Amino acid sequence: MKIAVLGTGMVGRAIAHRLSTLGHDVVIGTRDVEQTLARTEPDWLGNEPFAQWQQTHPAVRLVSFADAGAYGEIVVNATRGAASLAAVEAAGAANLAGKVLLDAALPLDMSQGMPPLLSVVNTDSLGEQIQRAVPEARVVKSLNTMLADVMVDPAHVPGHHNVFVAGDDAEAKATVTGLLREIGWPEDAILDLGGIRGARGTEMYSALLFAVSDALGTYDFNVAIVRK
Amino acid sequence: MKIAVLGTGMVGRAIAHRLSTLGHDVVIGTRDVEQTLARTEPDWLGNEPFAQWQQTHPAVRLVSFADAGAYGEIVVNATRGAASLAAVEAAGAANLAGKVLLDAALPLDMSQGMPPLLSVVNTDSLGEQIQRAVPEARVVKSLNTMLADVMVDPAHVPGHHNVFVAGDDAEAKATVTGLLREIGWPEDAILDLGGIRGARGTEMYSALLFAVSDALGTYDFNVAIVRK
Repeated sequence: MKIAVLGTGMVGRAIAHRLSTLGHDVVIGTRDVEQTLARTEPDWLGNEPFAQWQQTHPAVRLVSFADAGAYGEIVVNATRGAASLAAVEAAGAANLAGKVLLDAALPLDMSQGMPPLLSVVNTDSLGEQIQRAVPEARVVKSLNTMLADVMVDPAHVPGHHNVFVAGDDAEAKATVTGLLREIGWPEDAILDLGGIRGARGTEMYSALLFAVSDALGTYDFNVAIVRK
Repeated sequence: MKIAVLGTGMVGRAIAHRLSTLGHDVVIGTRDVEQTLARTEPDWLGNEPFAQWQQTHPAVRLVSFADAGAYGEIVVNATRGAASLAAVEAAGAANLAGKVLLDAALPLDMSQGMPPLLSVVNTDSLGEQIQRAVPEARVVKSLNTMLADVMVDPAHVPGHHNVFVAGDDAEAKATVTGLLREIGWPEDAILDLGGIRGARGTEMYSALLFAVSDALGTYDFNVAIVRK
């Protein structure tokens, strides 16, 4: 399947690489291809420049957001939250019409340092904002509750733990659930939170995620819902 | 130990009863003792009137917030979030000075129906508001991430799942951890999130809790942090 991943950071690379190894035809979208390829310094998280990463991942092509939006049959938003609305709009509402848009981003506000605040919270969510920005896309919020290593390899954390899906279109959620199953998520680990409003829950959980990661000194964990 | 529980609802009753059965000398505080005892209708959650509950729980005495604040060596805030600041202030800043104040409340805003919104979020929390309201009390946020049945009986949910503590005073957190251990929480289930700011994480998680309970049709679950 043709899949376009928006975002050249750690999350975008991890998802693009994983989907590519599963046999999908994957492109990564960026705001300015030349600028992205011209970078020679590691990013603020210490990830190697994209041009260097691409040498070891030649199957994944770098294209503009607009070309990514046109190319992907499924589009994944893996940009940072502050850039997500612009990225999705650049991918093109018309390009995205009818398509599944998996939104894996968090609306982090780093202006006060760590731990981050959220730039949208409580009465709205980034998932809902994106759905309103591209109303004909079928947005599914997922994967935004964990480190990229866990997103693309659930076995990175042992035993039972969860990934959530939230979106207004049941068929789109089934498509995303299928992708998650391909990645290795067990069926009973995928918890459907209903409509896109459920994005509030998974985005707001990130306040607990950052507090826990501070306490444990690692992001190598995931959340589980344990039933009676 | 003399323990005062503020709040006559489901959570207050559950905690008061449990601590009483463990041999503690427990009072429940309420805004207006006569009014609380005069109620003859079940509350909005279907719980029996307090006077009826008290007949089967005679060891737990009902007193005013002020008397509760003066009596307890440890004070537990189990009022609903919208009433918590007034309850704590009525318990008395001077009464609470130096004491451990376990805050188990959630700042739920029910004005838009279910699922609730939060009345304080992101840049502040109810736990922090309470700490500022009674600055000489040693506030520890805990137990606010689960149903009352799980708070007082961790074995209600099988296997590994967590309870969090957050507070600025390490000794107060050790006291609360001791109480949690008495209730039955395993040592490795108690996750210390650092200062009282960690209350934001556990309060904001409630947005996910309500989304999950909607999805599962039950509150009979708890959250677990699963490590690599």
